[in-house]
Amino acid sequence: MTRQQEYTTVSDAQQAVEEKLIANVLTSFEGCTDDRLKQIMQALVRHLHAFIRDVRLSETEWNQAIEFLTEVGHITDDKRQEFILLSDVLGASMQTINVNNEARGNATEATVFGPFFVEDAPLIENGGDIAGGAAGEPCWVEGTVRDLDGNPIPGARIEVWEADDEGFYDVQHADGRVYGRAHLFSDDKGHYRFWGLTPTPYPIPHDGPVGRMLQATGRSPMRASHLHFMVTAPQMRTLVTHIFVNGDELLKHDTVFGVKQSLVKDFIQQPAGAPTPDGRELGETTWAKAHFDIVLAPTGS
Amino acid sequence: MTRQQEYTTVSDAQQAVEEKLIANVLTSFEGCTDDRLKQIMQALVRHLHAFIRDVRLSETEWNQAIEFLTEVGHITDDKRQEFILLSDVLGASMQTINVNNEARGNATEATVFGPFFVEDAPLIENGGDIAGGAAGEPCWVEGTVRDLDGNPIPGARIEVWEADDEGFYDVQHADGRVYGRAHLFSDDKGHYRFWGLTPTPYPIPHDGPVGRMLQATGRSPMRASHLHFMVTAPQMRTLVTHIFVNGDELLKHDTVFGVKQSLVKDFIQQPAGAPTPDGRELGETTWAKAHFDIVLAPTGS
Ligand SMILES: [Fe+2]
Ligand SMILES: [Fe+2]
Repeated sequence: MTRQQEYTTVSDAQQAVEEKLIANVLTSFEGCTDDRLKQIMQALVRHLHAFIRDVRLSETEWNQAIEFLTEVGHITDDKRQEFILLSDVLGASMQTINVNNEARGNATEATVFGPFFVEDAPLIENGGDIAGGAAGEPCWVEGTVRDLDGNPIPGARIEVWEADDEGFYDVQHADGRVYGRAHLFSDDKGHYRFWGLTPTPYPIPHDGPVGRMLQATGRSPMRASHLHFMVTAPQMRTLVTHIFVNGDELLKHDTVFGVKQSLVKDFIQQPAGAPTPDGRELGETTWAKAHFDIVLAPTGS
Repeated sequence: MTRQQEYTTVSDAQQAVEEKLIANVLTSFEGCTDDRLKQIMQALVRHLHAFIRDVRLSETEWNQAIEFLTEVGHITDDKRQEFILLSDVLGASMQTINVNNEARGNATEATVFGPFFVEDAPLIENGGDIAGGAAGEPCWVEGTVRDLDGNPIPGARIEVWEADDEGFYDVQHADGRVYGRAHLFSDDKGHYRFWGLTPTPYPIPHDGPVGRMLQATGRSPMRASHLHFMVTAPQMRTLVTHIFVNGDELLKHDTVFGVKQSLVKDFIQQPAGAPTPDGRELGETTWAKAHFDIVLAPTGS
């Protein structure tokens, strides 16, 4: 329960009026027979009213909020979800991830899922290439999947997906092309490895009301460079996460607050012609390598 | 500032993760050069995150919230404002009215404006009729407009509007008809009087997502019977309010929480044929009378 707020600039009579209203609204949900729904609605009422009272919201500001939400609703369609974007840039999506993925020993931390995952991405062999023609610097990623006690987990399913070097995911093109995504399985020592692309930054869609809010508040629409992972294994809690690029100046300003220090990895650039881990010939391009060990917590934790 | 919440069922490590995120989101608004906007956004972040943490919002519930808001956005158009309805049934509209109309001595209390006010309603003489052909029981309403010291306020502009006895306002018909609304001015003793209709209850529009929420939580869409007033006078704070009908069983369950005890008035029914205050002949119908003295606070209070 939220403790009752003191509003010292407000008269006792006025505070009584405001508190009486909150009591009335809470009472209106008392007849709700779904206990969880009742808990959520009553908590929503408490926090919403505390917000209005804290900022002493003006009627003009209330109107602006209604207009803003209306615009968010009207730009939202099958392809664009501006409410999710709004939740993202307020950190609400990330906080929801947090409360559903409680810190558990040394288990790898979770971060936002994002809108660009696709079911049934191509299967590749361990050591294969997820790029599928996407433009960007080749990047070798490898690591081991283990449990909390350090035992390797063979056969873990690893989904990876990322944008090309212009910041676009395949699904942002209308022609159905598939690139920058695949799934693979860890080997009998829990080891995995693949060729991808060195991640580059991209902006969230910012030509709508959420973008305008970011601009009005002096915030950038950019996400820190990242590579998405979803890792599943029997009896293990599914891990949805990213890895980020050490040194990326956007790490401190990721607009959806997905960065956790433990997920920032060295992407070490190699000169053109440097021998690759699997002997692949890359010609006249630099390439990078990164290491990401994954620790899964057991189901139900 | 909201005090930091303790989540006793959650590990210290987990609480640290959740609090770190909040700190990051708050920091992201530090560059906002509009101080008021910054204050509002940071307070919103605090309360929104406290809500998510309090209820330990599940990812399924987060998805349901996104879908609900999307539906609210899609049903909203020029004629229908489901976000206002949502704000109304959560008491947020009424709380905004409250914080902008602080209790001031014996000044008449404010309540919600509602969506049915119209500019340029007909002018009537003191003692005239606002019904304009609307169906319902005739009702004589009178009172005096005064300041906080009890001095009468002559020439106060009094706007009144109400639904007919089927619960519809004129503007809910598509044909442009005008009924149940007028404006008049208090006389040189601050006195006003008019014929209206005895108020009857009506439901807010409840065939959309907000109506579904009310149903799921066991709430009614009905508003308590009321008659709207907006009173303006030079140097005086504008009063937007209603009067409610003593004995109405909906007084305790008004779905937008507009009822304040001081605004509940006796509407005393008179038998058919009982002499009227102004000698008007009403024939074979009962009629009612109500008294509503209005006290205006000075501007800036
Ligand atoms: Fe992404
Ligand atoms: Fe009304």
